[in-house]
Amino acid sequence: MSDDEKKPCFETTRRVEFHDTDMAGIVHFANFFRYMESAEHAFLRSIGHPIHEKVGEAVIGWPRVNASCDYRSPAKFGDVLTVRVTLEEIRTRAVRYGFAFHVDPDAEPVATGTITAVCVEMREEGIKAVPIPEAIRAGLEKVGN
Amino acid sequence: MSDDEKKPCFETTRRVEFHDTDMAGIVHFANFFRYMESAEHAFLRSIGHPIHEKVGEAVIGWPRVNASCDYRSPAKFGDVLTVRVTLEEIRTRAVRYGFAFHVDPDAEPVATGTITAVCVEMREEGIKAVPIPEAIRAGLEKVGN
Amino acid sequence: MSDDEKKPCFETTRRVEFHDTDMAGIVHFANFFRYMESAEHAFLRSIGHPIHEKVGEAVIGWPRVNASCDYRSPAKFGDVLTVRVTLEEIRTRAVRYGFAFHVDPDAEPVATGTITAVCVEMREEGIKAVPIPEAIRAGLEKVGN
Amino acid sequence: MSDDEKKPCFETTRRVEFHDTDMAGIVHFANFFRYMESAEHAFLRSIGHPIHEKVGEAVIGWPRVNASCDYRSPAKFGDVLTVRVTLEEIRTRAVRYGFAFHVDPDAEPVATGTITAVCVEMREEGIKAVPIPEAIRAGLEKVGN
Repeated sequence: MSDDEKKPCFETTRRVEFHDTDMAGIVHFANFFRYMESAEHAFLRSIGHPIHEKVGEAVIGWPRVNASCDYRSPAKFGDVLTVRVTLEEIRTRAVRYGFAFHVDPDAEPVATGTITAVCVEMREEGIKAVPIPEAIRAGLEKVGN
Repeated sequence: MSDDEKKPCFETTRRVEFHDTDMAGIVHFANFFRYMESAEHAFLRSIGHPIHEKVGEAVIGWPRVNASCDYRSPAKFGDVLTVRVTLEEIRTRAVRYGFAFHVDPDAEPVATGTITAVCVEMREEGIKAVPIPEAIRAGLEKVGN
Repeated sequence: MSDDEKKPCFETTRRVEFHDTDMAGIVHFANFFRYMESAEHAFLRSIGHPIHEKVGEAVIGWPRVNASCDYRSPAKFGDVLTVRVTLEEIRTRAVRYGFAFHVDPDAEPVATGTITAVCVEMREEGIKAVPIPEAIRAGLEKVGN
Repeated sequence: MSDDEKKPCFETTRRVEFHDTDMAGIVHFANFFRYMESAEHAFLRSIGHPIHEKVGEAVIGWPRVNASCDYRSPAKFGDVLTVRVTLEEIRTRAVRYGFAFHVDPDAEPVATGTITAVCVEMREEGIKAVPIPEAIRAGLEKVGN
């Protein structure tokens, strides 16, 4: 681990389900993005923030502007994946998360990925990017070393 | 075909996609319900009715109260399924559709299923079951022999 | 509960994930079938049997011949569903499971469903329905009251 | 379009289905990866190559080593997306595809993505990265300008 590599701020586990697999006998590559999102949501719950949080008058949401994944080894039905979440970058209006998926928590990850989510207010008239509300920012910075 | 068996009122085709399969090498059983819904929507479009249609002040929706499927043979990646839709029953506030999935359109279906959908008005204050609006009912009855 | 109603033989919980929802704001109806399957698998693990178990020379699998679901109320993002599994019927070559999904474990279920799975041997040359192996049958009957 | 920007080698369309949406009312971000894969497969079929092609003794497969997507605007239920595929790079053992998703085919894409797939032989004893077979390479280069 290099000096500037972020430490995980959250860890969870997830059992691969039968419907996550494809005819190649492994987790379909698109499902890692669902796994990432659910780990992101579990992380936000862990610091006291639901996904669609009401801040003042508006509901805050986190649409994605980018998602990517590198696949090194397959994950299989019955594997219980260890998912480690890192806060890669906290910007004024966006957060970039990193994710590492381990079949063996002591070995290299089988896949790593990122999601960049923008903070928006969801109003009747549409959605608008806004600075991350102070309470959420404080929560992120506290764990984001 | 027995005398009281309904004739299909709509037919479409659908190619099995890689992500529809599971590690058993066949279409995952839950995905037939997605296929049914998309065929139902294609049928409604074919008679001039979108899914979330505005009728007067209210938007009409069709939540499901029941869905079932019988599986006889597997469907595989690359199969182009012929999907036949029947109108099994038109009730005051509900429609029951039947679906037959054929790998070979001239052979027995590999799966058959049903969906029962209730007609509702979707308003700010919630959803409420309502009689099927006259224009939609007329459209269904015209093709529903 | 009527006298002949089966008691649950297994209970698990499952958090509704964001990707399980649809634009109606609720769990998409097809996803309840995935939930059923995962609960079935958790039940089989709980009695010591993996899904693709090797019995003698052959691997045992459980393809579905029927699945159905009744929907009473919606399930929503963030709900933690209590899923109760019943063994509705143990036949020579098949098992029928019942499932009840509760948003509030003390209230009526929001949905109930069934899956009928046939016991097969999966061999090079194809799959073949077989009597449920004795060890598995004994495990099912022990909990199936 | 800059001089070195690749021209699409394939175009297809895809209707957004109800089950592709989430409670935010738009296509769930992970589903764009499924759309990409299906467009890749349609492209390969268009140049005469199935996904799991037998070349000599071995079956050729294309596991992913990377996938990414940039999201600019939402896609909605009922949209018919125009999907344009580009061959970004043909390497000895890998292909990188680009994808652009258009709600309006004459306007900017709502999302763009890439998939890098490695050519492997799938044998009893496992999978092994191999040079892209000559016939497939020729087919790719012919359309890949």
